[in-house]
Amino acid sequence: MKDIDYGLYLITDDFYLNQRGILAVIEECLKAGVTMLQYRAKEKSSREMLKEAEKLKELALKYQVPFIINDRLDIALAVQADGVHLGQSDLPFTVAKGLMADRIIGVSATSYEEGREAIQQGADYVGVGPVFPTATKKDAKPPLGIEVIRQLKGDFPKAKLVAIGGISLDNASEVVNSGADGLAIISAILGASEPGERVKQFLKMN
Amino acid sequence: MKDIDYGLYLITDDFYLNQRGILAVIEECLKAGVTMLQYRAKEKSSREMLKEAEKLKELALKYQVPFIINDRLDIALAVQADGVHLGQSDLPFTVAKGLMADRIIGVSATSYEEGREAIQQGADYVGVGPVFPTATKKDAKPPLGIEVIRQLKGDFPKAKLVAIGGISLDNASEVVNSGADGLAIISAILGASEPGERVKQFLKMN
Repeated sequence: MKDIDYGLYLITDDFYLNQRGILAVIEECLKAGVTMLQYRAKEKSSREMLKEAEKLKELALKYQVPFIINDRLDIALAVQADGVHLGQSDLPFTVAKGLMADRIIGVSATSYEEGREAIQQGADYVGVGPVFPTATKKDAKPPLGIEVIRQLKGDFPKAKLVAIGGISLDNASEVVNSGADGLAIISAILGASEPGERVKQFLKMN
Repeated sequence: MKDIDYGLYLITDDFYLNQRGILAVIEECLKAGVTMLQYRAKEKSSREMLKEAEKLKELALKYQVPFIINDRLDIALAVQADGVHLGQSDLPFTVAKGLMADRIIGVSATSYEEGREAIQQGADYVGVGPVFPTATKKDAKPPLGIEVIRQLKGDFPKAKLVAIGGISLDNASEVVNSGADGLAIISAILGASEPGERVKQFLKMN
C-alpha cells in the first residue's frame, strides 16, 4: 500500500451511523468509491470498538481502501488496521511511530504550526482543519479557512494534506484548488439521504 | 517479576485524585507499602493518560511494584507498563494476549462463570467483584459477596484472585479468609484523610 489515495476520505460517526446501521451505510459509500476509511468512535467501549472495527476492516479490505483507526492504537493493532489517526489530544506521533512503525500515521493539525510540526516529525499525512465551521465535532477549534492548506502546501509540497471540517459539494473545489490532497468528510456524506449518491457527486468534481 | 504480590492492589481514581494531586497521594501509598498499582482513568484523553501513566510508571519502578494500566493496551505499551487489566467491556483476554504476551494480564469477573472463563483462558489474575456494594464505579453490577471467591479458589486453587468492590478495614479479613490473594482498593484508601496511614492499617491486618 505505497500509493495512498487520500482523495475522498470518509470518517465514521456514531451520531449518523447508530441510526442507520454502520455496516450497510459504509459499504454503500465504499462501493460508490470512497478512497480511504477512518473508524472514529469516542463514546464506545473498547470491546464494542473492536467488534465494529473488525467488521469495517473486512469491508475496507473487500474494497481495497486503507483502513485507519482514530486515536486508539490498541484497536488498530488488534484488528491489524492500516494505520491510526492521531488528534492533538491523542498519543503523540513519535510514541505511535515507536509502536507501529510500518503503518500509516496521520496527525490532525488545527494551525499552520501544528501542521508543520506533524510534517517535520514524519506524519504520513496531516488532517488540516476545521477548514470551515462544522457541527460534527463539538470541541472543534475556530475554522481556519483554506489559507493554512495553501501555506503548508507551498512550504512542504511533498506533504500529504487532507482537509477536514465543513467540507461540502459547494466548497470542495475551492479546497482542492488550495492544495489539499484529499477531503475528509463526515456529515456531507453520512448525513445525506443517499450517502452512496453523495460520494459519487464528490468524486465527479475531481 | 515472576512472583507478584497481589496483597494490597491500589487502583487510581479521577474523582479522588483530581482534587488532591495524583502523584503525591500515590507516592504516599507506595511508600506505605501498596504492593501493586493500577492506573484507571476513564474520562481522560489518550495524551493526558500517557502523561500521567509515564509519571506513575516511574513511581512504581521506584517502589518496585508492578504497574498495570486499566483497559488501554496502547497506553500500557507506550509506557512499558507491566501489564493491563481488562474489564468485560474491554479488549478480550485472547486479543490482549496476542499483543502483549509477556506482560501481566488481569481480567475482571462479575460472576463465577466469568471468573472460570478468565482462569481457563490463562489470565494472570482475576479481579472478582464487586464483593460488596461500591460507590466508586457507577456501572458496577450487584455485589457478589465472598461466596464466589470461595468457590473459585476451591475449584481453581492455583488461580490468583483479587477481590474488589467495597472492601474496607472492617471486611478485609473476611475477604482474605475466603481465599482472595489480594485486595483491590480505591475509596477505602484514596478517600481516607491520610491515605498512607490507611495503607499501613490494611497491611497490619494480614
